[in-house]
Amino acid sequence: MKKYALIVAGGSGTRMDSSVPKQFMILAGRPVLMHTIEAFAGDQENPLIIVVLPADHIDHWKNLCQQYGFNIPHQHVAGGATRFQSVKNGLEIIRESDAVVAIHDGARPLVDKKTIEQSFRLAAQHGSAIAAVPLKESLRKVEHSISSAVDRSNFRIIQTPQTFEIKQIKRAYAVGDSAEFTDDATVAEKAGLMIRLFEGSYENLKITTPADLKIAETLLLDRTKKSG
Amino acid sequence: MKKYALIVAGGSGTRMDSSVPKQFMILAGRPVLMHTIEAFAGDQENPLIIVVLPADHIDHWKNLCQQYGFNIPHQHVAGGATRFQSVKNGLEIIRESDAVVAIHDGARPLVDKKTIEQSFRLAAQHGSAIAAVPLKESLRKVEHSISSAVDRSNFRIIQTPQTFEIKQIKRAYAVGDSAEFTDDATVAEKAGLMIRLFEGSYENLKITTPADLKIAETLLLDRTKKSG
Repeated sequence: MKKYALIVAGGSGTRMDSSVPKQFMILAGRPVLMHTIEAFAGDQENPLIIVVLPADHIDHWKNLCQQYGFNIPHQHVAGGATRFQSVKNGLEIIRESDAVVAIHDGARPLVDKKTIEQSFRLAAQHGSAIAAVPLKESLRKVEHSISSAVDRSNFRIIQTPQTFEIKQIKRAYAVGDSAEFTDDATVAEKAGLMIRLFEGSYENLKITTPADLKIAETLLLDRTKKSG
Repeated sequence: MKKYALIVAGGSGTRMDSSVPKQFMILAGRPVLMHTIEAFAGDQENPLIIVVLPADHIDHWKNLCQQYGFNIPHQHVAGGATRFQSVKNGLEIIRESDAVVAIHDGARPLVDKKTIEQSFRLAAQHGSAIAAVPLKESLRKVEHSISSAVDRSNFRIIQTPQTFEIKQIKRAYAVGDSAEFTDDATVAEKAGLMIRLFEGSYENLKITTPADLKIAETLLLDRTKKSG
């Protein structure tokens, strides 16, 4: 079964107090997005890599690739106005119908090989495989400014990759966009797909603040030390 | 109104793959717990500091204080078998009735001055003030191995300090222990207290894994640079 990695790098970087979109911020000497692409390329799964970027960032990205000598093969697709539209644009260029696609945030460069491997394997078996982690801290529900305790063991924090059998996720994305679509699992659930979670890794963090960038650098460095 | 900080350092460190309890792990050259105590002592609120430790760790802690020349005044109390019992033991030595008490995890050394100040001020006004942050990622609820999307904007991740008017929290702790008591807010809610949340800081992380320790070190170093 053919494998695709659809890396969505549409973020504008507004939370980073920076005019540089977060996928282009420098992490351990290279733009974040290069680390993310490499995580999938270096994997034994060896998926075809599609990167969705805002249309007006594609030239900049090509220049960055040249500048950093980054030569991992990948295809570019222009994103849309929302994450939903960006993913949809990416899915549309996949022609195979017997395939699985791992949809992944460009701003999650620390995804590990085990997570990627599991995600492809489980999605091929079950139709979907969504990386998720338990909550480490207490959780409260807020309604009309009254908060109440909830049992955190009944909840999971959702990450990416979110990996799907291609026909099913394309069918799910055939609907219109909606504000409730915060991720691909939500789109798939709306279409009636069974959502299968699997345990991801706390280190697979999403870079949204300058502090996250420093944390990611620390974790990357630590990983290099362990493997070196 | 008198102010107390009740720092609960009862953790056994089982998640740290280490025989050293997490509050004694070395962070930027000193045990984690010293950073936590200092965060409260350095504050203009200047609360009386009570540290709850497992009975058989108190001598070790005293030795550490001597070894590191740590001389911020604080009182020791022996903890109990559970977090609930440890907090209860700590509350019992507070004699004043016109006071507020900030109950705080010993393993959260990065709590900042603004959070501490807000927590004391809001608790004095409203009876309780619980540090909490919005979720940055999607959330799903899991029931009978079926997961469904929930609106994360209706949830908050709960941190410490959890600060209360002393009479109210003592009354709440007069009940028996329960497995559902994952934090002080849960105990207070059970007793019918109104739980007031306020916005904490993502950097106020709880150290539970070796990676957390490295992350905390990065954030501390960054903070020193900014203030230096």
